[in-house]
Amino acid sequence: MNKKKKVNAAILIIGNEILSGRTQDKNIAFISNWLNSNCGITVSEVRIIPDVEKIIVKNIRTLSKKFNYVFTTGGIGPTHDDITAKSISKAFKLKYKFHKDAYKILENYYGVDKFNDGRKKMAKMPANSKLIHNPSSAAPGFITKNVLSLPGVPSILNSMIENCKKYLVKGLKVHSKTINIFTVESNISGQLEKIQKKYKKFVDVGSYPFFRLGKIGVSVVSRSTSKIKLTEVNRDLMKLIKSKKIEILDI
Amino acid sequence: MNKKKKVNAAILIIGNEILSGRTQDKNIAFISNWLNSNCGITVSEVRIIPDVEKIIVKNIRTLSKKFNYVFTTGGIGPTHDDITAKSISKAFKLKYKFHKDAYKILENYYGVDKFNDGRKKMAKMPANSKLIHNPSSAAPGFITKNVLSLPGVPSILNSMIENCKKYLVKGLKVHSKTINIFTVESNISGQLEKIQKKYKKFVDVGSYPFFRLGKIGVSVVSRSTSKIKLTEVNRDLMKLIKSKKIEILDI
Repeated sequence: MNKKKKVNAAILIIGNEILSGRTQDKNIAFISNWLNSNCGITVSEVRIIPDVEKIIVKNIRTLSKKFNYVFTTGGIGPTHDDITAKSISKAFKLKYKFHKDAYKILENYYGVDKFNDGRKKMAKMPANSKLIHNPSSAAPGFITKNVLSLPGVPSILNSMIENCKKYLVKGLKVHSKTINIFTVESNISGQLEKIQKKYKKFVDVGSYPFFRLGKIGVSVVSRSTSKIKLTEVNRDLMKLIKSKKIEILDI
Repeated sequence: MNKKKKVNAAILIIGNEILSGRTQDKNIAFISNWLNSNCGITVSEVRIIPDVEKIIVKNIRTLSKKFNYVFTTGGIGPTHDDITAKSISKAFKLKYKFHKDAYKILENYYGVDKFNDGRKKMAKMPANSKLIHNPSSAAPGFITKNVLSLPGVPSILNSMIENCKKYLVKGLKVHSKTINIFTVESNISGQLEKIQKKYKKFVDVGSYPFFRLGKIGVSVVSRSTSKIKLTEVNRDLMKLIKSKKIEILDI
């Protein structure tokens, strides 16, 4: 018997550059996909907030209570606008201080002569945090209670994500199945609703319009932790598609 | 004298497909850039939430109190998982009913024969909402109190955004200036902090690392509603760059 339970997470993107639209976020989809595929953890909420201490503190408190895990991205570099570690310390009323191992890692990486104040700042974090190894640029991420803090630069974040695994309790993976068909949503909306109601407890059925090859289509996406229920839903969906003589793009 | 004030907004992305990482969001950066450039409105928070009524209701109530405007994207189509209009009705305790003009627009677009239940659903919205014209696919967006609801498909959203303008009070535009230099953040972090402190009330100075032409660089981005203060900050930044003999990529 499978004893795993549903485990959820929130992502907190800390950064004026994402909020202003200057930078296109790439971390949300990456983290969400990785968490579900590798750990069976579902991302249930995402927030993007500015680099303002009291806003970070408030969001860390709210989200860490509400979800099993919180992933933060951004604000752990060497400059004045990197205030994630300090803010998490405040949120949990922990001391903000040098982490001995992080200090050593960074001192080794830069060499004693070039280990300046900005670089030293990257070794300061909430007391009793554990490190998330960074194979790209040395400066480690860290986990404080149920909050995992990663950098904002996607290539560095991507290289570190595997090192989060050992801190995470695994949950039930959500499986998904997509059927792409050439029709309009309103042609199938009634029957789709009936199918959703029939499997309400087990499967989420979503429909998303697209344009491809000059034609309008719909992606019907079913998501469930049960592969058996997913197969049943798909049988019903295929019946609907055949009965309406709808052209299938791919399954 | 400029009588405009700071006006802010939140974006609420409603959609399991973004949260699960299946679809890469493109609306956040687009709306945020458009609002600042065209209306002087600053996006101060973004949330991405699932298609669950009670979660949508709670977020609409919280965000509509906290910010001048809330932009929602997604969940206004013809299928069962499109519950944005119904949820906003609940959030504001308004009737969820047919909007006469929306009904006419859609009936005209599809023709009486093809105006089925799914399509009719797109004419249902909170009582007393005003319409946001949709030149792409007819189904209108709507504004309910200070909440503007747009579709999730980026091409349709983009075609509708200009029609939001007449409902928005304009604020102070945030101007920005970027200097891209070849150095590492920790080489300038101390002086950057001093410059930020000097202009604390007027200018936000952010620094963002990048990799280009095989070299590590930093984008220094200054943002302010005052062009004069922005020029002053940039004078100080250029002095710092020259004193450190840092190579400039572009300004």
